[in-house]
Amino acid sequence: MSMSSFKQRMDEARGLVKIDLVLRRARLVNVFSGEIHETEIGIHQGYFVGIGEFRDAELELDLGGNYVVPGLIDGHVHIESSLLSPEEFCSLLLSHGVTTAVVDPHEIANVMGAKGIQYILDSVEALPFNAYVALPSCVPATSLETSGANLGAQDLSKFLNHPRVIGLGEVMDFHGVIEAHPAMIEKMELPVSFKDGHAPGIGSQDLNAYYRAGIHTEHECSTVEEMRDRLRRGFHVMLREGSAAKNLLDLIPAVTAGNSGQCLLVTDDRHPTDLIHEGSIDYLVRLAIKAGMDPIQVIQMATINAARAIGLPGLGAVAPGYQADFVILKDLNRFEIEEVYWRGVKQSSRGERPQFSRFPISGLTDSVHLGTWSPSKLRVAAKQSLTPELNSERAKVRVIGVQDHSLVTSALIRELPVIDGFVQTDPAQKIAKIAVLERHQGTGNVGVGFVEGLGLERGAIASTVAHDSHNLVVVGLSDEEMNLAIQTCVEMGGGLCLVERDQVIGKIPLPIAGLMTDQDAEAVAQILDGLLEKALTLGISRNVDPFMTLAFLSLPVIPELKLTDLGLVDVEQFLLIETVL
Amino acid sequence: MSMSSFKQRMDEARGLVKIDLVLRRARLVNVFSGEIHETEIGIHQGYFVGIGEFRDAELELDLGGNYVVPGLIDGHVHIESSLLSPEEFCSLLLSHGVTTAVVDPHEIANVMGAKGIQYILDSVEALPFNAYVALPSCVPATSLETSGANLGAQDLSKFLNHPRVIGLGEVMDFHGVIEAHPAMIEKMELPVSFKDGHAPGIGSQDLNAYYRAGIHTEHECSTVEEMRDRLRRGFHVMLREGSAAKNLLDLIPAVTAGNSGQCLLVTDDRHPTDLIHEGSIDYLVRLAIKAGMDPIQVIQMATINAARAIGLPGLGAVAPGYQADFVILKDLNRFEIEEVYWRGVKQSSRGERPQFSRFPISGLTDSVHLGTWSPSKLRVAAKQSLTPELNSERAKVRVIGVQDHSLVTSALIRELPVIDGFVQTDPAQKIAKIAVLERHQGTGNVGVGFVEGLGLERGAIASTVAHDSHNLVVVGLSDEEMNLAIQTCVEMGGGLCLVERDQVIGKIPLPIAGLMTDQDAEAVAQILDGLLEKALTLGISRNVDPFMTLAFLSLPVIPELKLTDLGLVDVEQFLLIETVL
Repeated sequence: MSMSSFKQRMDEARGLVKIDLVLRRARLVNVFSGEIHETEIGIHQGYFVGIGEFRDAELELDLGGNYVVPGLIDGHVHIESSLLSPEEFCSLLLSHGVTTAVVDPHEIANVMGAKGIQYILDSVEALPFNAYVALPSCVPATSLETSGANLGAQDLSKFLNHPRVIGLGEVMDFHGVIEAHPAMIEKMELPVSFKDGHAPGIGSQDLNAYYRAGIHTEHECSTVEEMRDRLRRGFHVMLREGSAAKNLLDLIPAVTAGNSGQCLLVTDDRHPTDLIHEGSIDYLVRLAIKAGMDPIQVIQMATINAARAIGLPGLGAVAPGYQADFVILKDLNRFEIEEVYWRGVKQSSRGERPQFSRFPISGLTDSVHLGTWSPSKLRVAAKQSLTPELNSERAKVRVIGVQDHSLVTSALIRELPVIDGFVQTDPAQKIAKIAVLERHQGTGNVGVGFVEGLGLERGAIASTVAHDSHNLVVVGLSDEEMNLAIQTCVEMGGGLCLVERDQVIGKIPLPIAGLMTDQDAEAVAQILDGLLEKALTLGISRNVDPFMTLAFLSLPVIPELKLTDLGLVDVEQFLLIETVL
Repeated sequence: MSMSSFKQRMDEARGLVKIDLVLRRARLVNVFSGEIHETEIGIHQGYFVGIGEFRDAELELDLGGNYVVPGLIDGHVHIESSLLSPEEFCSLLLSHGVTTAVVDPHEIANVMGAKGIQYILDSVEALPFNAYVALPSCVPATSLETSGANLGAQDLSKFLNHPRVIGLGEVMDFHGVIEAHPAMIEKMELPVSFKDGHAPGIGSQDLNAYYRAGIHTEHECSTVEEMRDRLRRGFHVMLREGSAAKNLLDLIPAVTAGNSGQCLLVTDDRHPTDLIHEGSIDYLVRLAIKAGMDPIQVIQMATINAARAIGLPGLGAVAPGYQADFVILKDLNRFEIEEVYWRGVKQSSRGERPQFSRFPISGLTDSVHLGTWSPSKLRVAAKQSLTPELNSERAKVRVIGVQDHSLVTSALIRELPVIDGFVQTDPAQKIAKIAVLERHQGTGNVGVGFVEGLGLERGAIASTVAHDSHNLVVVGLSDEEMNLAIQTCVEMGGGLCLVERDQVIGKIPLPIAGLMTDQDAEAVAQILDGLLEKALTLGISRNVDPFMTLAFLSLPVIPELKLTDLGLVDVEQFLLIETVL
């Protein structure tokens, strides 16, 4: 820095020269001193220059005692779960007071590989938002599925010099870490300081190893015991409230004055409807305050604690030299966002959303490649010769049992009718067929099984959002309806759809890698709401979000029975097993 | 790291292989989770591998429920103030449970320049102690004195690659920072992340600039208001309890659950007697607990908070991968140190001190160079011609007024007798003469003045410890006694002495730069105690530590009137002024 610019910065901070913006009569929620105090706040060229008194500014705002809070930080989130483009996602977060997010493009990377990561980096580049990227550490997530890419340490290392790349994304393969698998060691030894954790169900002794490997955050706690085990070993615990996994209220009782500095707030996965109607981190703050937490403590968790846990100096506080990202509120307990500033410039007022031009998506729209496809691949042969003792018109099969409000499934055994040697669905038992079609490499792989508990009585439902490999997953009562749903997904270049008889009764194209829309958030939320209403007419239970459920039925890391393009997976044994017994 | 060593580390942490040491039935003061819980603690090759359960170890210690606390950290201390060699200092700190200190070799650097810094680095190199060095930022401290060295950014930068060098030492010249003096800008732009603060009396608005320049710690708070002003701007506040400046009890009321993470403990300057009889950071912990603070909160301040404020990853906690520095205690509230471990090896048991071999000091012992010296330089001419209205046998002079228990002096005007044209001391008024002799460059500079309030009635007292330039300072009732004290200091190659008539009635040689002894701590403390007793026989007030007072009478940054080798300094005006009016 030149001498004159150093002097200029000192003079700005001292209140000796005219600055861009001064907030007068602000009630600052001070995350360092842990108190609220009235002060003026000086801002120049996007940075706070200090607090106290500032005589002269280009713009002076009298806040009349309104609260100023540092811009909120989401420490761990997947943009793809919102179904929105990165631009829409950031716009929506800004309107909710969130100015910083650490995004892990794990989903798009499973489909598009490095190109997907590059797209996320490119699409947020010009936005008035602090988007940091944690590089997906587990692509593919497991060996029992076919993904669109395989990213090793070498592939990830190409992104390390990008200024938005701050580390390694959630290391789900904790076995790979603690058992020191060579490919994982290579990733763990990438020269990054932030390595994000994800280790539900890890033994408490093994947690030592996971932490010692350099992984110091965890967002998968669902009980106070899990949280305590992790806090004791030094983890920064991310209290999560997503659309699917909701842990915040369960964990708040474990937050104390002595450990709250280790705690931060994250959303992980939030659907567009929840983002629009409930909010983002602002919603978590409201929830925590309603649950009885001290607002200042909650705000520390939503700001400076996150910045420190992740390693984002200059963010998360109102202090000299910090980036001037802040939120204005009238009432701290209600925590309704009035105005949102990023680098000293207003981005949103009373929930209005900034409009951003979009980065071209043309390179990402061709993501559905089924290879050789025939509806006959949906057939399940009954293996009559192997089960002579069975009634020849019934077959005993393994069925995935969907549970209400849960991503965990049951491994069921059911008898299903057999016609012409093929096992049939059974509307009476509400047992449908499920198939996962590999859509990346054109292998033509199709896994087929049966599912109970969705409530589906007729028609079919399909999606190209299916964790973590995002193959095409389809559930239906007839092969014909399933085939139409599959064809509809192919024609859309990826998306969600509902089919009844020979009609497509609803759909949302997701042209960006088959994961994200190029439409506006509100439009998508509206269509999605309509789709969910229509799903009810097919018999889908009100206790089940059908698309979310579909998206997790192919994730072979959550117990008990899942289906991938390679077949049925016994998650506990981590083995492929036969559908028909 | 090789694959096998990664695997080995994982296995150690998981409890699968034999490790060096396991502590069983430990009650861990967990600074992350903010609680005390019983656990086993595994240690291997100097590092904690984890907590939980460990089956097999070379050495197993049953702590029977005794407490384990992370090794204490002193975030800001000057070794020289202990009068001890670095080896003795570290040994003493270890016996008090302190395993880490950030030392600022500001004093020896003012005498010896870069050679002094190198000596500190060399002397601690082989010790079982985490000694980190903050490079002295203000050598010389002011332009109104002559020091032994002048260290610019260029000189400091030569040390930046040394692994013990972690940043820039206390930036006392806050005017230089906020007014952007070129030499200070160069220092502020050295590529270090830690810049230690020292800005008492800075305006609260100017604090913005000081923080924005990258200085994020402060140990000079003496009131809760000063502390609040600094916390609000993001400073990590170092609560200090030294031998001279004692601020801990005044500041504790300002520590809250919401801000304690920003607070840490430091000693700054502690004399050998206090270190031996009271302790180091352990003493501050006891003091804070006695004052009513929660022991866990205090221990966080004394460990992890310090590590984070300064930037010492892997220190200050018991957690997987952290350095195995810890303290064992029987009673948390009494906080008496039972055993002290550094990197998993016991260093001290019940206050016993480890013995360390010493780094050679031969290059540092030749530090007293008075140049051309004559006792006649102590004479103060009365300027009778300029004050014809005065009684020709009295002169009106400025006198430094020493105040009890304070480093601040008063600027007094007194009348003193004149004999043969020279102003005399006055035992009746207990006004003595003071002189500061430049001892580094042989300039022959001598500043002479008068001092009241020490209580000295006869004899002389001299020291080569005299902040911050450490010239030779002498106070006495007669020029003859002062000259003998000066000669004694010269003969010792630096040190402290007391003279009565023609006898040296006490002395301590300080051969290391005229600042530090090569003797053992206990021996020095005993001699120093004897010296202080003898000082009383010369009339020195019991309310004054004569050597500490002497050491600060030449520090021209603490108000109101001080004396340097260049003459009397009006500190508020920051100008040299005449002694005789």
